[in-house]
Amino acid sequence: MQFELTREFLNLLIETIDNKDDKAASQIMEDIHAVDIADIYNELNIEQAKYLFLLIEDGEKAADVLAELDDDDRTRFLKVLPDDIIASKFIDHMDSDDAADVIADLPDERREEVLQKIKDIDQAGDIVDLLSYDEDTAGGLMGKEIITVNINEEVEDAIAEIRKQVEEVDEIYYVYVVNDDYILQGALSLAKLLLATKNTKIKDIIQSDVISVKADMKAEDVANLSDKYDLVALPVIDNIGRLLGRITFDDLVDVMREEAEKDIQMMSGLTQEVEHSDKVWQMTKARLPWLFIGLIGGIFGALVIGVYEDDLVKNASMAFFIPLIAAMGGNVGVQSSSIVVQGLASGSPGFESTFKKVLKELFVSIINAIVLSVAIFLYNYFFSSSFALTVTVSISLFIVIILASVFGAFVPLALNRYKIDPALATGPFITTANDIIGLFIYLAIGAVMFAIL
Amino acid sequence: MQFELTREFLNLLIETIDNKDDKAASQIMEDIHAVDIADIYNELNIEQAKYLFLLIEDGEKAADVLAELDDDDRTRFLKVLPDDIIASKFIDHMDSDDAADVIADLPDERREEVLQKIKDIDQAGDIVDLLSYDEDTAGGLMGKEIITVNINEEVEDAIAEIRKQVEEVDEIYYVYVVNDDYILQGALSLAKLLLATKNTKIKDIIQSDVISVKADMKAEDVANLSDKYDLVALPVIDNIGRLLGRITFDDLVDVMREEAEKDIQMMSGLTQEVEHSDKVWQMTKARLPWLFIGLIGGIFGALVIGVYEDDLVKNASMAFFIPLIAAMGGNVGVQSSSIVVQGLASGSPGFESTFKKVLKELFVSIINAIVLSVAIFLYNYFFSSSFALTVTVSISLFIVIILASVFGAFVPLALNRYKIDPALATGPFITTANDIIGLFIYLAIGAVMFAIL
Repeated sequence: MQFELTREFLNLLIETIDNKDDKAASQIMEDIHAVDIADIYNELNIEQAKYLFLLIEDGEKAADVLAELDDDDRTRFLKVLPDDIIASKFIDHMDSDDAADVIADLPDERREEVLQKIKDIDQAGDIVDLLSYDEDTAGGLMGKEIITVNINEEVEDAIAEIRKQVEEVDEIYYVYVVNDDYILQGALSLAKLLLATKNTKIKDIIQSDVISVKADMKAEDVANLSDKYDLVALPVIDNIGRLLGRITFDDLVDVMREEAEKDIQMMSGLTQEVEHSDKVWQMTKARLPWLFIGLIGGIFGALVIGVYEDDLVKNASMAFFIPLIAAMGGNVGVQSSSIVVQGLASGSPGFESTFKKVLKELFVSIINAIVLSVAIFLYNYFFSSSFALTVTVSISLFIVIILASVFGAFVPLALNRYKIDPALATGPFITTANDIIGLFIYLAIGAVMFAIL
Repeated sequence: MQFELTREFLNLLIETIDNKDDKAASQIMEDIHAVDIADIYNELNIEQAKYLFLLIEDGEKAADVLAELDDDDRTRFLKVLPDDIIASKFIDHMDSDDAADVIADLPDERREEVLQKIKDIDQAGDIVDLLSYDEDTAGGLMGKEIITVNINEEVEDAIAEIRKQVEEVDEIYYVYVVNDDYILQGALSLAKLLLATKNTKIKDIIQSDVISVKADMKAEDVANLSDKYDLVALPVIDNIGRLLGRITFDDLVDVMREEAEKDIQMMSGLTQEVEHSDKVWQMTKARLPWLFIGLIGGIFGALVIGVYEDDLVKNASMAFFIPLIAAMGGNVGVQSSSIVVQGLASGSPGFESTFKKVLKELFVSIINAIVLSVAIFLYNYFFSSSFALTVTVSISLFIVIILASVFGAFVPLALNRYKIDPALATGPFITTANDIIGLFIYLAIGAVMFAIL
């Protein structure tokens, strides 16, 4: 049943395009889901994609394909399509939120052109309304396709009302109930309406404790809210409670996925979203900045070691455990910062004070530090010729593990307090900082130990 | 509108519990959403939580609270509740999928006891059916609450049919259409039914290209599918196409979130899920294994450096850049493995062969390597007294960056080919391996350079 994009299929399709076999190509497009067509476009050049696009007869489907394309692909695509095609063939068939996204992707000078060519004046109005919201807010995510009934109606009138509105809306999920001032009063499921008798009053079957969000709520918070309460759609209201639109789960799932990807990206030391299909230059640009910071950290490390050059000349074996100390500081720091960042991201209330959290981190790290220091002590005791080195490595490892984990827990908490994204502290930053601190401790202790033992 | 769990509220609640003020406590429970009650339970001891739980009068709500609790909390909770309360007060009011999860959480000897005390025999049967599926498959996620109509019916009969079934189902989303053998034929939205005239045949308004999944499909694949096609609910079928149940978006969002958390956890070097609220011992257990691997890596590093001890005695400044080389190898490796892992996880088709992917990684790394090697060359040229060291650091950094990124890209691809989770390669594993390789290259080149320059 499900379509799978194979190399054979792709070769066949490209052959069909090259032959300009309109009939065969449009038949193929008809059989495939819009989402899969968007996937296929990734593998075609812009001319091939445009050719196929204009062959899609079903306007609804063509609009879906445009909505499903990656931002980059869509921008590239819109560039080669004339204004009137964009307006009449696609925008007119799109949900208002997707349509607003498309218009927002156009260069300023084309926006007005395209808006004026939209035939459905209500749709154009909705788009202009939606463009006024920041894209990272509830307003930026919502669509205007909602079904509303008045709270003073009876079921029979409400159903008639719904029949009139239903053509505009792909998926209903909820019918929203408003009063005469269009202030949200609650929601109703279609199932409830089906079960009720004709003359039941809407106000008697309304679910009034519906969770709604204000238009300026941050997209990430909206996503957390819908995830927490398992909401399939959320009504959006203005500051005095008037119903503006609704956000559906699929857009919120996208927000959640993007947030998760952003966290992983920061942890990996990437400054922007990178996909394996990106160009070499894009990938380089995302990667160099953090590598430079790592390089500067390495130079600091070199300076720290430089301070102890004389000690190293005397006891070259001190150098053996430099990588171990640096790596362990990094590993421990990443672990504890990552646990803290995940805790912050989940938005769990967390009554524990910062002090208590760092204290718990301290306990965990003391246990880890004891186990690992003893392990390396035993190794060095049996296999290393220098007792001074054995003691140095164990003591400094102990201290480094504790400092690195407390530091790893503290930095994201501090960033969060100052409204900076705590995930910044999970990546190369924490490893680099811990490297330098660890080196300093190791070499300082070594200098003392080799002097006294 | 939205409930916020404050310390003041919690103190008040605990006071109410301590005073055994049943009326006040049950009023508080009535005003709060089940999800929030589950949150509150995290902050109470088991006796306090049990007291509140038994005061919830609305069976549906009590069941929701039980379903919303963390696995750990729920297990703890079920332990203190008698069998008949679990069966009559909770299971009877739960959706079949949540109920099956609860039963699965019980120790073997209690399962049968509780199952036998369930009054609704259909529910008990559904649960027994669901318990036979692996929890990481579509079958393990699905619920039995579905609304079905026969393809040969007309709209009027279908609506009557739906009215009979609707009590059992919280959210309808779709009405599924089956034939006489209960084989899935397609789906219908309630909106379509509302719009159709009484005598329309179901087969004329059915949406027949509905996406369904087999019961043994992996949960992760189901989640990717629903995300890709923005599906709010997915019907589950057996091998001959008979309808078994449906999976709703909220359960799939949970699967997605868990997958993302697992990836981050692996990247952070944690062997199991850790929350900041976990006990010290749980946190230690999750962290020690990877730290041990890091320790062993560090010992190998020490052995590698040991081989070059004589060179270090002669040129102690060689030690200065050991941390830089190790850190850069680690950072570059994490970047490239993470990009590859994300690409694999997104399930994008990706026609590029493994060879081509690694080749692209090679280009990116050559650019990075040139930029960073030149930068460190300039630094050392002006600030370091040893030209041999200057040349050693730049050449080895160049090689390490390229090797680390090719290695970082290749390992997850290789793991994936052998059906091992590629995310294993994103964490301490890749940094540790790159540390050792980097050290070896740096010291070997250094030995040569100090000999010839």
